[in-house]
Amino acid sequence: MPANFADRLLDAIARKGSPVCVGVDPVHERLPKDLAAGPTAGDAEKAAAIGRFAEAVVDVVAGIVPAVKPQIAFFERHGSAGVAAYERTVARAKAAGLVVIGDLKRNDIGSTAEAYALGNLAGDDRPDAITINGYLGADGIEPFLKVCREGGKGAFVLVRTSNPSAAAVQDFQDASGKRFYEHIAAIVAAMSEAAGLTGAGGYSSLGAVVGATYPAEARRLREIMPRQLFLVPGYGAQGATASDCGAAFREDGTGAIVSASRSIIFAYADRKYAGMDWKKAVASAATEFARDIRAATGL
Amino acid sequence: MPANFADRLLDAIARKGSPVCVGVDPVHERLPKDLAAGPTAGDAEKAAAIGRFAEAVVDVVAGIVPAVKPQIAFFERHGSAGVAAYERTVARAKAAGLVVIGDLKRNDIGSTAEAYALGNLAGDDRPDAITINGYLGADGIEPFLKVCREGGKGAFVLVRTSNPSAAAVQDFQDASGKRFYEHIAAIVAAMSEAAGLTGAGGYSSLGAVVGATYPAEARRLREIMPRQLFLVPGYGAQGATASDCGAAFREDGTGAIVSASRSIIFAYADRKYAGMDWKKAVASAATEFARDIRAATGL
Repeated sequence: MPANFADRLLDAIARKGSPVCVGVDPVHERLPKDLAAGPTAGDAEKAAAIGRFAEAVVDVVAGIVPAVKPQIAFFERHGSAGVAAYERTVARAKAAGLVVIGDLKRNDIGSTAEAYALGNLAGDDRPDAITINGYLGADGIEPFLKVCREGGKGAFVLVRTSNPSAAAVQDFQDASGKRFYEHIAAIVAAMSEAAGLTGAGGYSSLGAVVGATYPAEARRLREIMPRQLFLVPGYGAQGATASDCGAAFREDGTGAIVSASRSIIFAYADRKYAGMDWKKAVASAATEFARDIRAATGL
Repeated sequence: MPANFADRLLDAIARKGSPVCVGVDPVHERLPKDLAAGPTAGDAEKAAAIGRFAEAVVDVVAGIVPAVKPQIAFFERHGSAGVAAYERTVARAKAAGLVVIGDLKRNDIGSTAEAYALGNLAGDDRPDAITINGYLGADGIEPFLKVCREGGKGAFVLVRTSNPSAAAVQDFQDASGKRFYEHIAAIVAAMSEAAGLTGAGGYSSLGAVVGATYPAEARRLREIMPRQLFLVPGYGAQGATASDCGAAFREDGTGAIVSASRSIIFAYADRKYAGMDWKKAVASAATEFARDIRAATGL
């Protein structure tokens, strides 16, 4: 039986000393000039270019952070050649000892959800965990949990997202004042208990995506989901501060992992790192990010 | 400016005489024996096998139905080689003059959603429309609408799904009795109006997925979304009858397209078609499906 995902992630965080994750969002137009394909390049060449960049980012951050989060949308942008580059990036990160969280937000029901789970999560050549969207309810989540149980993998269900228009959907509330995202959170907590996914460290392999831009809500969601690890996007480019992110953690500094993507991987384009080699800029930005979050969690 | 997607779909339905769509869900374990890869085959061989099957299904149904709906999960099951088979299936269907609706349920925000839209919907080699999940709100939907407007493409937002546990999530209701899925429906209708996606036929290129297993709800959703085309899954294997599906249509027989997948493409395994060549079974099942739905809509 493979080790529980939550335990593996907690262990990786403890070894690296900071609960952070670098999002790998390779946008061809933003690549350092010498890595980009030419202006007339097709998808195959662009896919190769973003793949080389993503693998190089993985190499740079492997000694600094415990985990990476490749965003498959930026690979799918270039079709099946892009998906092949995503697969190589995942393999590279796993070989480097990083925990890999695929940001896929997949969702469907029954045997279709099972196909997504088998194709995107099961097996040594797939990520350690992926993000999923729970709008279809329990039968859309359960097929992923089966792979989590049997393969030592994890899943993070979208509960509260950090974008401006999220509230118009997710804040929908019932007569008692309960918000829709709290309802989803309660389903996640209940399914996690029923599935027996809690590891030795007290956290479940079924986690939750909780946007960092709403710290008060993060505290409320912690009450509803005591055993969920929170994957917290929104730091950096999306405007949340390290202190905002701190609300997702327990007092002992555990319980969440904060993600930053473009502010790290495209740091070379930031005035702060002007003139620095792009890889050195990634290393510097990742190191500062890890230090900021470590400080905010009181570790 | 390319023609409006809703108008193109309505035209294809009128030409074929029935508002139906064959879902292409190629499961390797269920392929006709002479098409399957061997028991020791890897993903590349299985991807090639399901791709050959999917393209053959497209060829068989091209003269019978107006549209096909490839489900990408069954292709992703076999990794990037599977996604390449999906791309070939889409190309084959478009070359055969079919309207292609990619069942992808993609969702994310901002530039990430834009990458999904550009990679999966924009361009001649991509589907005419895809399904999307609206849980992230307007900024998760808008990037897809931009591609719809500029490229004559379409999108169907998940509003009400047909699976058993959907109600536990989507029926969440506010103090006035409004259900969450009705709230999503209202957002879809409002965004559609604002985006100017309505074609000459009175329907919008922004449609909605409305499960066939809840006919009363389909009627209520029609009131909230007068201009949305409903993509209606659930016929056949998922238990809905042609009469259940009829509720999604207006009295004039327009307004929806009903999908059936495994009951059509794996018809050869049904007792009803015992001994029949698998392609003939697909043709027979597709023809009966089209006739049943035509009758239910009163066309």
